[in-house]
Amino acid sequence: HSMKTRVPFLSTIMNYIVRRKGKQIRPIVVLYSAGLCGEIGERTYRGAALVELLHTATLVHDDVVDESYQRRGFFSVNALWKNKIAVLVGDYLLSRGLLLSIDAGDYDLLQISSRAVRDMSEGELMQLERSRFLDITEPVYFEIIRQKTASLIASCCAIGAASAGANKELTDRFHAFGEKIGIAFQIRDDLFDFGDNDSGKPSGIDIKEKKLTLPLIHALKQVSPGSAKEILKLIKSKTPDKEKLTRVTAFVNENNGMEYARNVMIQLKEEAFAILDNHATRNELDMRALVDFVIDRKH
Amino acid sequence: HSMKTRVPFLSTIMNYIVRRKGKQIRPIVVLYSAGLCGEIGERTYRGAALVELLHTATLVHDDVVDESYQRRGFFSVNALWKNKIAVLVGDYLLSRGLLLSIDAGDYDLLQISSRAVRDMSEGELMQLERSRFLDITEPVYFEIIRQKTASLIASCCAIGAASAGANKELTDRFHAFGEKIGIAFQIRDDLFDFGDNDSGKPSGIDIKEKKLTLPLIHALKQVSPGSAKEILKLIKSKTPDKEKLTRVTAFVNENNGMEYARNVMIQLKEEAFAILDNHATRNELDMRALVDFVIDRKH
Repeated sequence: HSMKTRVPFLSTIMNYIVRRKGKQIRPIVVLYSAGLCGEIGERTYRGAALVELLHTATLVHDDVVDESYQRRGFFSVNALWKNKIAVLVGDYLLSRGLLLSIDAGDYDLLQISSRAVRDMSEGELMQLERSRFLDITEPVYFEIIRQKTASLIASCCAIGAASAGANKELTDRFHAFGEKIGIAFQIRDDLFDFGDNDSGKPSGIDIKEKKLTLPLIHALKQVSPGSAKEILKLIKSKTPDKEKLTRVTAFVNENNGMEYARNVMIQLKEEAFAILDNHATRNELDMRALVDFVIDRKH
Repeated sequence: HSMKTRVPFLSTIMNYIVRRKGKQIRPIVVLYSAGLCGEIGERTYRGAALVELLHTATLVHDDVVDESYQRRGFFSVNALWKNKIAVLVGDYLLSRGLLLSIDAGDYDLLQISSRAVRDMSEGELMQLERSRFLDITEPVYFEIIRQKTASLIASCCAIGAASAGANKELTDRFHAFGEKIGIAFQIRDDLFDFGDNDSGKPSGIDIKEKKLTLPLIHALKQVSPGSAKEILKLIKSKTPDKEKLTRVTAFVNENNGMEYARNVMIQLKEEAFAILDNHATRNELDMRALVDFVIDRKH
């Protein structure tokens, strides 16, 4: 379709990326949100394509940033074609997404998504800065994930609403709603990492990358500064990942980190419903389906 | 001013980038082009800021792509803060540039510049693909620099024109004009690299990076396939850079590579003037000043 290019090499990479696509949560959120506000039309489909292109662009860049060589069970672009190519492919995807909206005159959708792009890079930089010192408190954690993860989910909700003719007030409410479920979405991911998933086994990627997430941040607050310092020292140490993970997971469980994070997630879900109350009564089933899709997933 | 951010770390990097700014050729081209078409106003200044932000974003990413640790005589962002930070800072600059235009409703300027962003990443990818095999012919060379370098200069001319009220036809002519002088601009750079500069000494960066540019491409065509193969073998070899450069420069001079590239540059300049003929007669001095500024520079 419209991902044609004059560089054969680039076509190869594009095909690779398209075939290894993910769950497409974000475009589906656009469609759901549009359905809750009116008719799904061409503008909605373009909005959905826009967010998926921007999301894919940031994933390709994230893999460079995180030095990840796997993505969705396959090799990442930087693993197969080196960092330099991945940086350029990300820029290319970004510009294709923007042009899709610009050429169709979807300026309102473009504005919403460009803010998300700014927030995502800002949030990621904040996380990199803070994780150097492992000094992430709960407010800083929420600010980082609001920018890094929730801003794009929020923009999906707002883009869906706006694409189906919602006015400014309703679009803003969908944005606020999306921010809440976006934060909940990230907490869902954090919980997966500590073993709250189908397999019951923690994947421990966050600990390995020295990322403090909500379950651990809460647990650290429940103990004396001395004990907290010891856990942080363990995370920074060269202890084998497996042993590190066992000890940190036990610490989080002893101090109710998982339960606390699950409760925050449920509360955010309630707050999200409250924001769209009028809509929830009208289209309650769709709304619940959307929230369940984002938050109550199993992987 | 408007580059405020909530991430202190990011402010540090922004200040570093702003203080080490370059010659600002691109925003000046926007101003010149606007002046040739009408009144310079707020829209023109925003257009100039947009292209400088996009250009800076691509430079920050280019330094990651090229693994360069110097930029404008100082350390590059990736040298000081690592690749991962540079990727994110580039994305951030890009989004700030886009938002500047979106928030002001400069959609026409945005469309012009987004096409340049797409062309630049596509051109750079084409160059990376081709240089692996050193199989760059003259048509491929022109296509690469048209996308990689000339597309942004062309967009500067078009943005300047459009910002000052030029209609579609005149804006398109400024774009075509900018493409010609943009290609000439790159050839100017290629010539610098072979010693056609104030110091008279070749810098030889292109040879070091195994980039074939016009003077060399022309020289290679003047000799037998066997002799050409030998030069390419030398470039690919582990011969010390200094010796490599001396031999390649001598080869280029013996085969009139420099003279040929200079003539192409002069011809492009004439073609550029011809495109804007009506305008050139009305504002001939400004037009010549603009072209001289881009092409007849000394460094």
